[in-house]
Amino acid sequence: PREVWKKGGRLLSVLLSVNVLLLASTLVSGGAFNKVAVYDTDVFALLTTMMLLAALWILFYLLRTARRPGAVPYRDAHAGPIWLRGGLVLFGICSLVMDVFKTGYYSSFLECQSAIKILHPLIQAVFVIVQTYFLWVSAKDCVHVHLDLTRCGLMFTLTTNLAIWMAAVVDESVHQGSAHSNASHTRLLPDRRAGDSGDSSGDACSCDTAVCQIFQQGYFYLYPFNIEYSLFASTMLYVMWKNVGRLLAATHGHSHTVSRASLFRETYFAGPILGLILFVVGLAVFIFYEVQVSEEGGRTQQALVTYYSFNIVCLGLMTLVSLSGSVIYRFDRRAMDHHKNPTRTLDVALLMGAALGQYAISYYSIVAVVVGTPRDLLGALNLAHALLMIAQHTFQNVFIIESLHRGPPGEVPQESPPKEPCQGLTFDNLDALHTLPACPPTPRLVTPSPADPQAAVTVILAPRDHWRRRCLKDISLFLLLCNIILWIMPAFGARPHFSNTVEVDFYGYSLWAAIVNVCLPFGIFYRMHAVSSLLEVYVLS
Amino acid sequence: PREVWKKGGRLLSVLLSVNVLLLASTLVSGGAFNKVAVYDTDVFALLTTMMLLAALWILFYLLRTARRPGAVPYRDAHAGPIWLRGGLVLFGICSLVMDVFKTGYYSSFLECQSAIKILHPLIQAVFVIVQTYFLWVSAKDCVHVHLDLTRCGLMFTLTTNLAIWMAAVVDESVHQGSAHSNASHTRLLPDRRAGDSGDSSGDACSCDTAVCQIFQQGYFYLYPFNIEYSLFASTMLYVMWKNVGRLLAATHGHSHTVSRASLFRETYFAGPILGLILFVVGLAVFIFYEVQVSEEGGRTQQALVTYYSFNIVCLGLMTLVSLSGSVIYRFDRRAMDHHKNPTRTLDVALLMGAALGQYAISYYSIVAVVVGTPRDLLGALNLAHALLMIAQHTFQNVFIIESLHRGPPGEVPQESPPKEPCQGLTFDNLDALHTLPACPPTPRLVTPSPADPQAAVTVILAPRDHWRRRCLKDISLFLLLCNIILWIMPAFGARPHFSNTVEVDFYGYSLWAAIVNVCLPFGIFYRMHAVSSLLEVYVLS
Repeated sequence: PREVWKKGGRLLSVLLSVNVLLLASTLVSGGAFNKVAVYDTDVFALLTTMMLLAALWILFYLLRTARRPGAVPYRDAHAGPIWLRGGLVLFGICSLVMDVFKTGYYSSFLECQSAIKILHPLIQAVFVIVQTYFLWVSAKDCVHVHLDLTRCGLMFTLTTNLAIWMAAVVDESVHQGSAHSNASHTRLLPDRRAGDSGDSSGDACSCDTAVCQIFQQGYFYLYPFNIEYSLFASTMLYVMWKNVGRLLAATHGHSHTVSRASLFRETYFAGPILGLILFVVGLAVFIFYEVQVSEEGGRTQQALVTYYSFNIVCLGLMTLVSLSGSVIYRFDRRAMDHHKNPTRTLDVALLMGAALGQYAISYYSIVAVVVGTPRDLLGALNLAHALLMIAQHTFQNVFIIESLHRGPPGEVPQESPPKEPCQGLTFDNLDALHTLPACPPTPRLVTPSPADPQAAVTVILAPRDHWRRRCLKDISLFLLLCNIILWIMPAFGARPHFSNTVEVDFYGYSLWAAIVNVCLPFGIFYRMHAVSSLLEVYVLS
Repeated sequence: PREVWKKGGRLLSVLLSVNVLLLASTLVSGGAFNKVAVYDTDVFALLTTMMLLAALWILFYLLRTARRPGAVPYRDAHAGPIWLRGGLVLFGICSLVMDVFKTGYYSSFLECQSAIKILHPLIQAVFVIVQTYFLWVSAKDCVHVHLDLTRCGLMFTLTTNLAIWMAAVVDESVHQGSAHSNASHTRLLPDRRAGDSGDSSGDACSCDTAVCQIFQQGYFYLYPFNIEYSLFASTMLYVMWKNVGRLLAATHGHSHTVSRASLFRETYFAGPILGLILFVVGLAVFIFYEVQVSEEGGRTQQALVTYYSFNIVCLGLMTLVSLSGSVIYRFDRRAMDHHKNPTRTLDVALLMGAALGQYAISYYSIVAVVVGTPRDLLGALNLAHALLMIAQHTFQNVFIIESLHRGPPGEVPQESPPKEPCQGLTFDNLDALHTLPACPPTPRLVTPSPADPQAAVTVILAPRDHWRRRCLKDISLFLLLCNIILWIMPAFGARPHFSNTVEVDFYGYSLWAAIVNVCLPFGIFYRMHAVSSLLEVYVLS
């Protein structure tokens, strides 16, 4: 089953996915606004249907497609690494707990709910279990039968995950918004869904009992995990989609097999220890901030100063460390890895794309502080925080992307000039290859052939190289721990963007809330994704 | 000057561009909102600075970089085709006229304006002239000196064009919004920029004279051309950026040289004639609609019915014609063209991406009509219009993308199975190639070598093939003319989205205005881009 035109085969599935996604986002965003007569039951019904269909396709894939002879002739060694699949299982378990809480919450006022609200978490639990098993088993597959069906199925499942993600993000923002309006006693959303008789804020069905309160609290705290689960699953599905119909040389595995025993021996411990200290301090600052802000008294100022100071120190250190990592690479003699690698291309695109969210928030903050009139300590801290945020994202991205493109350790480039430009040409203009100056008439392997493993081992054990590798491992561990603490803070509800009044006064609450609620989920996803990328950097360097 | 790692070289320029673009979009969007204290002078100052810097870099490129020995060893035959450059010059001239009008408009109340408002159109005129000359001369260059500087310069110029585009779109929406608030006498934006003493709506500086009124009207009608100019320039700059440091075989030109004499002979005239009829009728409908809507009486209903009916007929015909084009391709034996071609990749991405704008508007309309209560004639027309819009975009994209990927006419695929999958492998795993079943040990040209031009000519003149080519040319001309009329309507101010009250009532004015004003510019750009792609399809088929 050779394909004549791969892009044409992909076109259909992309069109399907775009249309379904737009329909879902229309309903989800329509449901989020006050006066619009789209009820959340509509959204739930759409999501439930999508999850059911996706689960059915997954079962078909597992039972029929994957069992056809010659269905999976190749497996992509880069796809679905163990930390991604492990993270998926972890977040999947948290999602299941969330579904339990959600079912419990909606069961508390069963009599005045429509059935779809209880059905939705149950179907979601089934979907999570089926999908997690599917991705655990098949993430590396390069499918070669049922090409069109598999592409459409994968894209549809991907779309389902993105729709779930959108719905969760919108739900969280609405929750945040209603919390804000409660806190400031202004009630910006007084008649939210007044027409929806089954809403929890209605009079007949209030969440009074202690159990119900616990369920509600619990499921709002478990949201971030479900969001991450959807995004993890999406990235793995995308790589599977890219791999449909892909031909790989069976012997061309070049996976970086790491000796697990030496995993934690090869650092100077400076990175992990400094990172752990920052992690613990950050956790303390976060708890302090949350307690101070939620109190009724006017201690927000103090909490904000603490929060910003910690962030400035942390971001400054991370910027410096990323920079020094890039400097180390300037002296590194390892060859660049030019192999085609959909996983890595996606990783780079996601890192660059997700950073845009935090960039946007920072630029809006900078404009508000610089143009706005009051210039006090908090404004200065806010400005420094925004500037450092931009610098940190930039330099960390440069470091991670360069790390991911380095070849496996121990390889030194050959004496001949690098052949990267020749690679851009594909076979069809091989005749013209002789006209190019730098390319040898007979193309060879770019990565040095492992003909002389003895030499490679010597290089690995050479002291200078070892010193550099240790530094890089320290750097990646330090950045990893810092990214975790910077993920925890916004994911679990720290919103200095609203406690701080500069931007709210400058842009008005609704505009600023829209900016933050659209951009912050990307910023949170960036942290998560940076952690998984840094783990890869740590293992590879 | 061979690059070790091309992606790394691109990273810097992308980061620069992203940061500048975000800063610009923050200021532009901030300036568009009511209560925000960002004045349009700030935006003008930023844009003027950016245009000056970009013009300086262009001059440096033309005078220094391009004159270095060996600076441009290769030229990309696909980049900057004549219709793109011709369109650029055309829109550039319209932009210059717009700048004259703008200067005249602001000169009318010189005494109470800040100098930047008059400086801005003047600098813009200089920038347009310099950039148009630069793109006309160098659009095909594959630069090989000053790699980093050229990449950053190109990205910066691209960012400048995008910023100008954003500012123009925002300005147009604000103008639209104020027109709406004037028309409905509700004045949604009563105190817009009350703090800006130099604003045209201020008391001291009203635009009373007839000349000033003409200038103002004129420059609002010339906006669409300036918007298109910026987008055309952006796509050409992007292709140049992709081509920096690219190696091409000097002999590997395979440009489709067309005999210009036979350009218009090879159609059945059915397509162009039907297209012209639709074009003229559409123009009449457009003028009728504009006249009826702008009148004070309640004739909006009649105008809307006419407008929607014409659009439904036009879109329906386009859908059918695109579909039949795709059907013809199912019987076509021309080989797929698998050469690497940044221009085509960008074209496809832009077609797919820009269609999202119209998709989104259509889905929001569908939800509003289906969920909303009043079901009358207008609602049904609106629903049909939205559904056909989605179908038309989808099938037209499929047709255009397939057309762009066909090889030059007269080529028939070889008897051997297509070798596309082998192409995905690059040189570095050539050793493993022998393990693949379908690839011959010695890779050959995929496109048949022009060793036998006599045979190719025979195929071209064969009656059955000729019949298919004629049909395809008819189809592309018909679609081209339809896209032009569908471009003219929204670009010159037809807004049935607001005349029609269904969506405004359902979503509320501000939300619906935000949706339309964000998405419609993409829809308009899609029409423009489809026209240029269809012209290419016409020439190639």
